[in-house]
Amino acid sequence: MLKIVLLGGGNVAHHLFTQFSKNPKVELIQWYNRRGSSIEKFEQHTEITTRLDTLKEADVYIIAVSDNAIAELSTVLPFQDKLVVHTSGNTPLQNIDSKNRAGVFYPLQSFKKDKKVDWSKVPLLIEASTENDLDFLLELAKSMSENVYKINSQQRSTIHLTAVFVNNFVNHLYSIGSDLCEVEQIPFEVFIPLINQTTKSLNTTTPKVAQTGPAVRGDTNTIESHLEQLKDPLHKEIYKSITRSIISTHGREKL
Amino acid sequence: MLKIVLLGGGNVAHHLFTQFSKNPKVELIQWYNRRGSSIEKFEQHTEITTRLDTLKEADVYIIAVSDNAIAELSTVLPFQDKLVVHTSGNTPLQNIDSKNRAGVFYPLQSFKKDKKVDWSKVPLLIEASTENDLDFLLELAKSMSENVYKINSQQRSTIHLTAVFVNNFVNHLYSIGSDLCEVEQIPFEVFIPLINQTTKSLNTTTPKVAQTGPAVRGDTNTIESHLEQLKDPLHKEIYKSITRSIISTHGREKL
Repeated sequence: MLKIVLLGGGNVAHHLFTQFSKNPKVELIQWYNRRGSSIEKFEQHTEITTRLDTLKEADVYIIAVSDNAIAELSTVLPFQDKLVVHTSGNTPLQNIDSKNRAGVFYPLQSFKKDKKVDWSKVPLLIEASTENDLDFLLELAKSMSENVYKINSQQRSTIHLTAVFVNNFVNHLYSIGSDLCEVEQIPFEVFIPLINQTTKSLNTTTPKVAQTGPAVRGDTNTIESHLEQLKDPLHKEIYKSITRSIISTHGREKL
Repeated sequence: MLKIVLLGGGNVAHHLFTQFSKNPKVELIQWYNRRGSSIEKFEQHTEITTRLDTLKEADVYIIAVSDNAIAELSTVLPFQDKLVVHTSGNTPLQNIDSKNRAGVFYPLQSFKKDKKVDWSKVPLLIEASTENDLDFLLELAKSMSENVYKINSQQRSTIHLTAVFVNNFVNHLYSIGSDLCEVEQIPFEVFIPLINQTTKSLNTTTPKVAQTGPAVRGDTNTIESHLEQLKDPLHKEIYKSITRSIISTHGREKL
């Protein structure tokens, strides 16, 4: 059994708790949160503590707190030479105080409080400063998910940035689309097949090859009429910036 | 049987031909293209012609040519008072010469030459200037697809614009993400679960509510570090413009 102490009381910590509770390879021996109130209802399932000086001996300490609290929490841990990992995509390995062995256990997923997570599909990106620790994290990760990747800090940083483009930004484009439709009383569901088509094509072709639309066709009439239709100057800016980038990516091929 | 003459030799025309050939409610009596070469191989399935003066009597003439050729082709048609429709998202109904009855039969889908289309899922957006013609197009559309919507020109225009955001622009964000990953030798497949999660959540929640990421959290440190990571000034512009828009959409709620 892999002995784990979990630290933090937010979304990621809660979803990790749920996974660990069901995972036969894992023993969650303790769950720490500064404020006990958010996790004390789980005390039948694991030991709950609000005091760092009561932390038990474990194979790994998983810090699942907000990015800017990781460094401080790792500094006040009352032990050394243990494996301490954080779960953040955008926090350096070095933010784990060097008195312990640092690692990263980064689940590439958007966690929402009340939304169930299918951990078996969540890509787990792991990183550690020693081979032994990496092997340990690999074993833990494989007990949770089919999609495990060993990466370095530079790759993790790029993955975090890419996730903003392909997840957060894409979602905002859906949000803009949904707002545009609402004004004209168009049900947004009309776009679901088109959206699914785009997503599905990622499995068979590169998005560069799959690109369609007025920008890649060099259809300036349509581009101009779209810009006229857009009322919100922020939407216009987005339209222009992406159109410029599409033209720059594909333009030369057509000349 | 609904008697159809198809005009045009591009992707949409080819995919329509495939559907009509299998559709028991439809009789495709003739297929016109200016250059016969691209469609003559189908002459065993329907009559092929390159001459407008040989066009037969039909219930509807479907013009599936590039947007800027629609008006001209509709003008040189050698008949009047017939139902003539185009298949474009961004072309006014009025571009069909007024000597005939105008309509629109707009399939909301990206068509690629060699990619099979499941017409039953394609949203068909129809429009006509008379109730009778609308009923006819409705009957035709329902014989092809489960997703049929009667819309007006203003709605179609908004739908076309929205499709650029939720399809073409989203695809370009995938393309940027894919390029960023390639530099660091990260397989783009690592993002597929995250992308599918975002798409799936459209069925249960609005994209506005589902928004996550540094911009909606007001995490300026991460935003700055991302902008530093981005080398391409066009990518920086996209990052900035979407971030500004997310902050503007969600910012006030947090204050």
